Formats: sequence, structure tokens, C-alpha cells
Amino acid sequence: MVKVCIVGSSGYTGIELIRGLLNHQEAQISQIVSRQYEGKTLSEVFPHLKNSRYADLQFSPEVDTESHDYYFLCLPHQPSLELAKKLIDKGKKVIDLSAAYRIKDTKVYPKYYKFEHSYPELLQQAVYGLPEVFREDIKKADLVANPGCYPTATILALYPAVKEGLVKGGKAVVNALSGISGAGRSVKQQFHYPEAFGNAYPYSPTGHRHIPEMEDVIKRASNRELKVRFTPHILPVSRGMISTVVFDTDYTKKDLIQLYKDYYKDEYFVRLTENPPQIKNVVGSNFCDIYIDFDSRTGQGIVISAIDNLGKGASLQAIQNFNLMLGIQEDSYIKEVSLLGILFP
Amino acid sequence: MVKVCIVGSSGYTGIELIRGLLNHQEAQISQIVSRQYEGKTLSEVFPHLKNSRYADLQFSPEVDTESHDYYFLCLPHQPSLELAKKLIDKGKKVIDLSAAYRIKDTKVYPKYYKFEHSYPELLQQAVYGLPEVFREDIKKADLVANPGCYPTATILALYPAVKEGLVKGGKAVVNALSGISGAGRSVKQQFHYPEAFGNAYPYSPTGHRHIPEMEDVIKRASNRELKVRFTPHILPVSRGMISTVVFDTDYTKKDLIQLYKDYYKDEYFVRLTENPPQIKNVVGSNFCDIYIDFDSRTGQGIVISAIDNLGKGASLQAIQNFNLMLGIQEDSYIKEVSLLGILFP
Amino acid sequence: MVKVCIVGSSGYTGIELIRGLLNHQEAQISQIVSRQYEGKTLSEVFPHLKNSRYADLQFSPEVDTESHDYYFLCLPHQPSLELAKKLIDKGKKVIDLSAAYRIKDTKVYPKYYKFEHSYPELLQQAVYGLPEVFREDIKKADLVANPGCYPTATILALYPAVKEGLVKGGKAVVNALSGISGAGRSVKQQFHYPEAFGNAYPYSPTGHRHIPEMEDVIKRASNRELKVRFTPHILPVSRGMISTVVFDTDYTKKDLIQLYKDYYKDEYFVRLTENPPQIKNVVGSNFCDIYIDFDSRTGQGIVISAIDNLGKGASLQAIQNFNLMLGIQEDSYIKEVSLLGILFP
Amino acid sequence: MVKVCIVGSSGYTGIELIRGLLNHQEAQISQIVSRQYEGKTLSEVFPHLKNSRYADLQFSPEVDTESHDYYFLCLPHQPSLELAKKLIDKGKKVIDLSAAYRIKDTKVYPKYYKFEHSYPELLQQAVYGLPEVFREDIKKADLVANPGCYPTATILALYPAVKEGLVKGGKAVVNALSGISGAGRSVKQQFHYPEAFGNAYPYSPTGHRHIPEMEDVIKRASNRELKVRFTPHILPVSRGMISTVVFDTDYTKKDLIQLYKDYYKDEYFVRLTENPPQIKNVVGSNFCDIYIDFDSRTGQGIVISAIDNLGKGASLQAIQNFNLMLGIQEDSYIKEVSLLGILFP
Repeated sequence: MVKVCIVGSSGYTGIELIRGLLNHQEAQISQIVSRQYEGKTLSEVFPHLKNSRYADLQFSPEVDTESHDYYFLCLPHQPSLELAKKLIDKGKKVIDLSAAYRIKDTKVYPKYYKFEHSYPELLQQAVYGLPEVFREDIKKADLVANPGCYPTATILALYPAVKEGLVKGGKAVVNALSGISGAGRSVKQQFHYPEAFGNAYPYSPTGHRHIPEMEDVIKRASNRELKVRFTPHILPVSRGMISTVVFDTDYTKKDLIQLYKDYYKDEYFVRLTENPPQIKNVVGSNFCDIYIDFDSRTGQGIVISAIDNLGKGASLQAIQNFNLMLGIQEDSYIKEVSLLGILFP
Repeated sequence: MVKVCIVGSSGYTGIELIRGLLNHQEAQISQIVSRQYEGKTLSEVFPHLKNSRYADLQFSPEVDTESHDYYFLCLPHQPSLELAKKLIDKGKKVIDLSAAYRIKDTKVYPKYYKFEHSYPELLQQAVYGLPEVFREDIKKADLVANPGCYPTATILALYPAVKEGLVKGGKAVVNALSGISGAGRSVKQQFHYPEAFGNAYPYSPTGHRHIPEMEDVIKRASNRELKVRFTPHILPVSRGMISTVVFDTDYTKKDLIQLYKDYYKDEYFVRLTENPPQIKNVVGSNFCDIYIDFDSRTGQGIVISAIDNLGKGASLQAIQNFNLMLGIQEDSYIKEVSLLGILFP
Repeated sequence: MVKVCIVGSSGYTGIELIRGLLNHQEAQISQIVSRQYEGKTLSEVFPHLKNSRYADLQFSPEVDTESHDYYFLCLPHQPSLELAKKLIDKGKKVIDLSAAYRIKDTKVYPKYYKFEHSYPELLQQAVYGLPEVFREDIKKADLVANPGCYPTATILALYPAVKEGLVKGGKAVVNALSGISGAGRSVKQQFHYPEAFGNAYPYSPTGHRHIPEMEDVIKRASNRELKVRFTPHILPVSRGMISTVVFDTDYTKKDLIQLYKDYYKDEYFVRLTENPPQIKNVVGSNFCDIYIDFDSRTGQGIVISAIDNLGKGASLQAIQNFNLMLGIQEDSYIKEVSLLGILFP
Repeated sequence: MVKVCIVGSSGYTGIELIRGLLNHQEAQISQIVSRQYEGKTLSEVFPHLKNSRYADLQFSPEVDTESHDYYFLCLPHQPSLELAKKLIDKGKKVIDLSAAYRIKDTKVYPKYYKFEHSYPELLQQAVYGLPEVFREDIKKADLVANPGCYPTATILALYPAVKEGLVKGGKAVVNALSGISGAGRSVKQQFHYPEAFGNAYPYSPTGHRHIPEMEDVIKRASNRELKVRFTPHILPVSRGMISTVVFDTDYTKKDLIQLYKDYYKDEYFVRLTENPPQIKNVVGSNFCDIYIDFDSRTGQGIVISAIDNLGKGASLQAIQNFNLMLGIQEDSYIKEVSLLGILFP
């Protein structure tokens, strides 16, 4: 039984990792770290976990960097940068949910994240944790940079078309919708319930931090440059994400569908849909539902993906990576989490 | 492997039964009945179930009354009354989610349900499927009348106090809140999204059908008469139910808490809470969270319970009963469904 | 044109006062006070007010206690206590939306509000601003203590029955539901959107601060003592409040309805309804909808009221009081605010 | 006082017209037509309108085509086509909220609306009721074709840029979000509250009916052809619409902003915003908030608009047109409706 430490375990990605690992038979959560809740038990802070496997586990204020095998980091980017380095130096396995090791081009960090990247070598070794693209590398990785939510949804929607050269003009227009949990657990005026209730709006219209991540990964995965015109929008729901991707192409709907079928035929967590995807079909799961269409009037392909921003967009994908690193079947335990976690209605 | 047929499988309780049984290792869903979706596969109608165990199972238009071992009936009251009789006569096991066999006093049916009960003998044999009260009877039952959602939440909140004679004056005031899925899947003007959005209101202020069910069961379980003054309210959420119960008593908070601890100490699915319960802590699960308090100003006990109206209030409780009837551990598989089904946030 | 200052103008009651006064032809908002937004214009902070009468009005950091005629105080209780005294001493008219001057019994303050009341004389002079009960006093008042939201909804539901001695046993059980704006604009973890989304729960089960306010006012208004057993619940909506009141009585439904009709026949803002009230019918308005029923099974009256907690429960009622103090027709301008503010759907 | 008849008055656009006209001093609603509610009063069906000007007005089953001056048609397209013709032939003024007279190219009707247009001459005379583009024609019109909600939001976002030739390549990518009231008041499974709750999704990914309307109007208004790549999405709110428009351009952000400022400088109901617009700032109003930006990485302009789909997107715009036809100030009474109708929070 592998010993797992979750650092930053009281944020949304941390608590979703706990849900994802509740039934995992080959991993034991041996430490949950949170300064805010030091000394409290998991079920005191999160009463929905009463009677669960980890109900009585106490939050620790400090990371024990010695005793565990795998570390999931749910921290702000800079603390994560440092802690990952320290743990890797000690020979630990790390799955980092921050952006600290996602982008190979170090120049991006000062521009988009306001810090210089101090470990460029480790950055080069880190593997981007999108199993559908980098599976074999993940299996051998010590440090996995777990993807952002928008990049997960968008790259899965774009990857086959870009890789095979079906996207013309080197650009795609991406409009995305995200539930508010994507903004984290820290309270903010605009996410105070009475203000977010019944509201929806675009934000960061020209410089969202996930743009360089998407472009960097697409380039490395496909050997092609693509500029992403990206507009994210806030949805008044807790979880769920839609990415609606439009690109010029000379290919038909049939071509596009066949291509995506070929690419994703062995992917349990990618489901091609016959109708536009709905967030309700994926919230609670590690699934990415993808719909493919072609607009003959404008000569554009349309690919629309839906994920749970905390599931495939963060913590359940992190466990998918963890399973790969462990060398066990990729969908182990999170298949059940996914199927039992989707509520209808 | 026991063979299970779900009749009325495309309504909310039917689809929640399917979720609850997805991972059940000792039962196989061998038929799902729905005239509306005849010939379609489960995942065509409910795309969130794509890649699940039953994705390709087809809806049948008619019940096969021969081939299965257990029948879950998710039907209107009168069709359920008839079908249950027919199945019992054939020696089948039946869990009926309608009200057709819940109330021993047949006079209630014409008054509250507008039909005469045609099978009074079978009604007497039927066991009310609230395991925390009638566990031993359920184990031996052929026909289980699965409780209503309001009665489940309210009886679990009242039972220890009434049974031990702590309720004075023979009355309790019950205010309850319910998510809209409790009203079923059939569309109605008042539940059209734009109208229900941002709304909340009481309904059936004096004659809700669940009143005689609560009073009948409390009487049988405790040998005491109690009049329930019951006001249900609609909440603008999909799932979740709160029952806030107030009664005159001479006992203290400490007495009340001790009593409930004693009664529910071995009940996995009943969790006594230190703070008032929240629906978010139980939605997706078979848990019933209960909070106990005493108002020294008015001399009244306050007991507040929270359940998922489709979980402990319907389908997951039905599987709890099913497990008892099978003779296997009561929480089998639905423990996992419950823990993995609660999303936070 | 009367000059009006709103202190605490960037909270929810402050901004609702601005909406309520936007079209008032006999009042000019001459100062809006908010330290947080010092120097910003109203429409910079609240873009929905762009192109409105006060779009370019700037927030001031300090109250000008000299230049205005009427002061609406939307402050915490203790600062309000002090500022009201200061303004009254200068001969100003004050409408205080805090609880500082609502309860005549000074002993309540240390117990429920954690401070000693330093101005007992002024407290005695203050008039409780519920026009349907204290209209004539309000007209002559210098200091109006604007009622709390739960007391407004509950007292209007109870007043005729208590006053006429129809309530037996000296107790009533009150269950109330409130939108989250009732908790104010300050961010809190439990009201962070992803956590409040889809949630509902009771809180303060035995000692809510509005209890002594309700009991004190009912006693002064009716000369009768009544104990209120009060359970408030959080609703996942921005605005809206339901108060469901149950009491023992010997009177019939017909008696009760006739009594309420008599009491409220000249009240524009109280509407007796034939069906249980819905928050959607009053959100945005100064209306209080009231439904009356009788449970012959338990011998209890049921009165259910619905208001907008920021409307009749706070700011629009404050303007109703303001109109009375001005000596103009009570519904002036807020009648239009009410009718145009209710959106269906 | 002009006499107004509202046909189809119990749907969402009908009831919003009633709200919009509640305080109109130069118009009297003299008939409300609804077969469904024949004989009932307005406040019986819509209790929120109790105590309003039209509370006691009864629904009529049939249109009186003689007695009124202005007719607002809130009907399906084909009945509207016929009734408008009949009324125009009698010399009446008509504002048609259906699509029957919006698109000059008759070939669109069989393709997108599944009927042949039987009155091509009247179609040519009809004026498209977007005052910011066709104001002078509207003033003289007998028949105004009131715009669709997506076209209103999208055309206002595109018009200045297209008209002045700033859009390169003859295409724009439009992603739009709509509250569910845009789908009308008729109940549907996908809009049953428990199913729409917490959900969001794209629909009609390649052939939405509003595409030819947008393209036809843009062409007539600007003398330029533009292909619109349009993806609408459902938002889980009652009201509100966002249109996010992206197009290739050689102009800068400064150029674009200056252009829009020039075009809309005298438009009360168009507000240019400094931050991306939010639906909460316009719901309840006739405002269209517009934000302009430029993506230098991709060489694309981004224009984002927000409206209330029932306000500027339907009924309040219809009253704006009505005011123009009457020859009174365009914002009469709906300015107040707009300012008092926006609730914050």
C-alpha cells in the first residue's frame, strides 16, 4: 500500500483528491496538510466525510517530506515550485496541481505568473500529466505537472485535428465556460453567493494564464504552432466546464469524426457524443465528453468538450496520472468514482 | 447473482436505483422497463451512463414477470398496487417505491389517494422499509413498502423521542424543505426552470399525503399516537431534504442527545451531527444526518434531519432494504455509492 | 426637495435604498458614505447604475452630519447606536436599519448583541418602523428603528391573531427561510458560491437575535406575551423570505381570514393570498404576501408570509417610513419600485 | 391615451410587456389575449401583479381586431404572420415579436422556419425594430418586426465594426449564452428544474434560426456581407444573455473603442463598459452593455455584449419601438422600468 500525502488538502482540489482516493485499494492517505485546520479531523471540517475511511485523520500544519511515497501538491504556484524541487531531490514522486512545472518555455513564468522559474532543469524533466497525449512519459515520471482545467478541455478538443494538420491558418477561437469552483476556495466579493447568483460573464478577455499552457503543450504534442484566441466565462454553478473550439478547416464532419474516433478509441475517459455535451453528464467524474461538427457555411470545424473542472480538470486526472505512475490500470478506482459521482438529476 | 428488474426505470427514482446498483456485485439488472423509451439503450437516453456497466441495456415496454428475482417498482400508486400483487402471487420479491403498501389503515387510501385498497391482506403482510425501525421484519419480507421521503426524514427525527415517551401533548410541528426532484420527472409549469429559479414556497399546507404515513408508522413503531402538523416547502435545488421537528418535552438537551446516541449507535447511515445539518452533506448518499437541541425558553425539543430525497428518501434506501432481503451486509455497495456520490463543493 | 444621506451605502441595504430612491421626486440623495469606495463614483462600483440619476455621485469616507435632512444608517449595531445619537442631538431625522434602537428592554442588548445600550432615553423615544402597526407614531418620529427582516415577516403574520387573543398557550412555532443577502455583503466561507450552491440548512437553532425583537414588539403592540420558537433556514437564493407560523387556536379558518382582512384592508403593501405565498411574487418589492389556514386535525392556525428581505424586510420599508415622516403618501415612488422590480420569470 | 392589445399575453414576452407598460402614461392596455387563461384575471394567474394597474383585467380568448390602436403579437411565427397581415389591412399598428417579418429574403422561411412566406410585399414594408440602426424607419412604420434576442445582442456588438469595414475575411465567430426564458414558457423535459439545475450546454451548433436574421440585417444595415459562425449555449438562469464576438481586424483597441463611442454616443440604452459585461447588470432592463477589446497575439477584435433576453432582447425593446411609433421620447417609462428593474444583488 503506497503512502500518499496531500498538501493543501482543504482547498477544492485537495478535498476532491480525498474523494477520489476514498476507495483506492492500493493507496493510503497518510498525511493531509493544512495550516488553517491544524489539529482538526477531516470530518470536523468536512462533515460530509463522517463515517468515511479518513474521517478521523487530522490535518497537519507541516509537510512531512520523509514518510510518504507520493505527494499531491495543491498549493499556489510558487510554494509548489519550491516544494516539488525539495521532494524530487529526496527521491519522492510528485504530482503537482499548480502551474509551476507545466510550461517548458521559462519566459512564460515572469510574464504570466510574475515569478522567475528557478528550476529550469527540473522543469524540462517534468511530464505534462495529460494521459491521452503523454501516457508513456507519465508512467516513467517522477514529477507530473497536472494540467489546468481549461487546457485539459481545450487540448483534448484540439489535439487530433492539430496533430494531423487539419487546422488551417494557425489559429483557433476558443470560448469556454467554467463553474466557480475553478476559482478556488478563497472567498472573494464577486463569488459571494448573492452576487454570483443568477450572474454570468466573460473575464480575462485577452491574457488568461492558461493560454501559454495550451499553446506550449499543443506545440510539443503536435509539432505545430497554434494561436489560441481564448475567452473564458463564469457560469453560476459549482462545477463543470465547456470548451467550444472553432477553427478553419478543409475537412468534412465525417472526416473529423473518424479522426477523433481513431485517436480516442482506447480512451476510457474520453467519450465522443452524438449531441452537444452537457456539464451535468460529467460533473463528479473524470470523463471528457467531446462533440464534433462542421459548419459548411463558414468552412469551420467545431469541437466542443465538457469536463468537471475539479475532476478531469484537476484531481481525478491527478489520480489517473498516479495510477499510471504506480503501474496499475489507469482507471482503477476512479472509474467507480466517476460512475457513482454523476448525479442525475 | 440475483436478477433485478426495475419497473418505471426512467423516472428519477428509477435512474437513481440504476446508479445505486452500478457497482453492486451480487445483483444484475436484467430488465429496465419504460414504455416511453422502448427500444432505446440506457446511454442513449441518459448519456452520463455511457461507458457504464448497463450502457447498452435496452428499455423494455413490458414487465417480464417471470424471469427476474427482485422487482423494484417505481410506478404511480395504483399500477404499483396491482403489479405488486401479481408478482407476489408468482413468488417474486418486491420493493415497492409507491405508497400502495405503506399504510396499514385502509381508510387512508380513499381519503388521501383517491382509490380503495383492493388487497388488504397483502397490505398487512407488507413490511415498511425503514431499516432503522423494522430491520428484522424486512429481512424476512417478500414485499417491502419503501418509505416516502418526508416520512423517512421525519420518522428518523421523531422515533426515539416518541418511542420513549418524551413528546408531550401528542403533537409535533414539522416544517420540511424539499428539492424539486421529489415531485418527479414529469414536467409541470411550476417546475419549468425559469419559474422555479430563485423561488421557494410552502405547499399542501394542511393535507399532504405523507401525514397519514408518518402517523401510522409512528404509532405502529412506538405504540403511541402522535399528531403531525406538517408544512412542506419547495427548495430551488434538485435534491435534498430538511425536516425540522419541534415538540413539547420535559427533557433536556443532554437527555435527548443521549437517547438518540443510544438508538442510533449501530446505524451506519444515521449520523448525529454537532451542528445543524446541511443538505450538501448528504446529497448523493444514503445518509440521514440528525441534529438535536432543546429550547429552554419554550420548553421544546428540536430535532432536525437532512437526507437526499432520492437517496435515503427513496432509491438508496430501497437498496438498503434489498441488501437486507438478500441477507448480505446492509451497507454493501451503497456505502461506496454514498461516499463517492457526495460532492464538495 | 429633502436632502438624504445614506451611511453604509455600499452594503446590500444601502444599495437597495439607492434603488428605492432613484425615482423619488421629493428626495435627493446628497451623500453616500463608504470608506471602502472613497472617491469612486456609484457607477464605477455598481455598473448597473450607469445612466441613472446618481451614476456620478461619489462615495465619501466620512458622514457630513450637518448638511443633510434625513440619514439612513446601514451600519453595524454599535456604530449605528452612536451615530444615531449624535444626529438626533443635532436635530436630524434618522432611520436606523441596525438593531440598536429596536428593542425597548435594554437587558436584551448585552445578552443578544454583546454591548450595553448607552442611550436608554433615546431608545424609549425611538419608534419601531413597522407602519402597519405603528403608523401614527412613525409620522411624528425623529428616530425610526427600522425592523429586522424576520421580525417584519413574522410580526405581520402574527399581529392580528395575537392582538385579538386568538393564540392559545402563549407560544408560536415559527420556521423561516431566508435568501443569503440577509447575511450581508461581507464575504464568508459558507456563502462562497460553490459552497452555498445547491445547499440549504437551518442555523442558530435556539438563540437567534431576532427572537427578542419579535417578542418585545408583539408585546408592546398587543399587550400580550408570546414566546416564539424560532428556526431560521438558509435558502440558496439571493433574496426572499418565508415565515411559516403555527399556533394553537380555537378559531376557524374563516374566522382567521376575516380577522386578517379587517386588519389589513387598507394596507397597500400587505396582500392576502388565496394560495401559499411564493418569494418570486415579492422579490424586488415592498409587498408582504400573507396566507392563512387552519389545521382541524391539530387545532392549529397556520399563517405564512413572504417578503423580500431587502425590500419590505429592510430598505423599501425604510422608505415607507421615510414617506410617513415626510408627511407624503406612504406608497409614494416605492409603489412603482415594487411593481417594476418584480420580475416574472 | 393609446389603446394597446397584447396577443399571447401569458407567455414570457407577453408578461414582460405588461411589466414594461405598467407605468406607461400614454398607453392603456385594453386587451390581453390568452386562450389558456380565458376569463381569469391577470392577478389570478400572476399573483405578483396583485395591486397593480391591470390586476383585474381579464384574459380574452379572441383578439378584438377593431377596438385597439396598437397590437403587440407574442405568438408562434405562422399565426403571427397571418394576424399581422389582417391587422395591417385594417389600418392598425403592429409590433410583431415573432420572426415572421424580420428577414427580407423569403427563401429563408421554408429553410429555417418550415413555411412559405405568404405576404412578401408586407415583408418588404416591415421595419426591423432595432432603433439603434433603423430608428427613422421605425418612426414611420406600421409594422415593426421586433428583433430576436441573439440578433439584438450580436448585431449591436458587430454593427459599427462591420459598417465601417473593420472586419476582415467576411466572417465572425459568435459564441452566445442565454438564460432559459429565451426558450419560452412551454414546459419541456430538458428545462424541468431538476434537470436544468446546475447544467449548461451548447445547442443547435450549426443551424440556429437566428443566423439568417443576423446576416440579413447586417447586410442591409452595412451593405457588407458577413458570415456568422454561431454557437448558442444554455445558461442555468432565468434571464440574461451574453454574445462574445471575435473577428479578424487590422485595427487597434483604441480605434475600435473610439468607433463604438462615436456610433453609440447618443444611445441611452447602449452602455460601453470598461470591464467585460455581466448579465446581472442588465437583467430587468432595456440596456445593452458592450465591451470592446483587441487581441494583439491573434490580430482579432473582441466585442462582448450583455442584454436581458426578455428586455432589450424582446419586450422592452418592443416598447422602445412603440414609443418611436407614437412619436414620444424613446426612453419614456422604460427608462424607469430599466433602472428599477435591475436588482443588486
